[in-house]
Amino acid sequence: MKEKFEDIANIEKYLRKTDYIIRRKGREILADFNITGPQFTALQILINQGTMTIGELSQKMALACSTITDLIDRMEKSELVIRKKDEKDKRVVRVEVLNKGHVILEKVLSARIEFLSGKLSNFSDEDKNKLNIGLKALYEAMNNQIES
Amino acid sequence: MKEKFEDIANIEKYLRKTDYIIRRKGREILADFNITGPQFTALQILINQGTMTIGELSQKMALACSTITDLIDRMEKSELVIRKKDEKDKRVVRVEVLNKGHVILEKVLSARIEFLSGKLSNFSDEDKNKLNIGLKALYEAMNNQIES
Repeated sequence: MKEKFEDIANIEKYLRKTDYIIRRKGREILADFNITGPQFTALQILINQGTMTIGELSQKMALACSTITDLIDRMEKSELVIRKKDEKDKRVVRVEVLNKGHVILEKVLSARIEFLSGKLSNFSDEDKNKLNIGLKALYEAMNNQIES
Repeated sequence: MKEKFEDIANIEKYLRKTDYIIRRKGREILADFNITGPQFTALQILINQGTMTIGELSQKMALACSTITDLIDRMEKSELVIRKKDEKDKRVVRVEVLNKGHVILEKVLSARIEFLSGKLSNFSDEDKNKLNIGLKALYEAMNNQIES
């Protein structure tokens, strides 16, 4: 029982500490591409889940609509996204990612993968594969239950 | 070669997505204890690495001294930390964590472990142990090389 708890406590610890290192490096990468953390998060959501309204994005990001409005204003100025009227209902405005936004997200993700690849250079292919399988199961367990 | 790259790309993806879920839950937990993300980070650093000056803490957190001064001001008001003069050199002021700071860090970490424990309820003991081993190796690989 104690060992079981220890594993969970260690999983929490290593995830937290790894995340801290990646987040620090991640901030450097974002700075290289002149985007902020919330802009990176918004790009990921809009690209993975498709265009959405400010209200929908504010729910996904757990931030106030006024905060998301400011965020999208700045992202529109940097030509990462554009506001577009819904074709069926002109009163509805959706945020769409522009080509520059797609390109920047790709570049940021590539830089993160390259960073991780360097750190894992001493891992055998088998170890990388095992870690991938473990993290996939972890993510799925966390994600499935988040809806319920 | 392609598969090797795919594993790294997936590891990056699952870490990023798992981190997003944990960070969102983490913010809820911090709000329950009336502390902010930077306060949580500062408490971890000061408790794990011992008392330090504002300058040292600002380096560790990669934030400006003025930002850390404001942060420590607020943490002192909430009685999480206290500024103390160095016994040997009275001109040097160090930040020390108070009992309340220790207690809150413990409670936040317990709540995070409990959250993770619930999410991993379907994992066998063996799977948890394997994940722990994989994440430990990951963290060590990332941490060892960060100094160089």
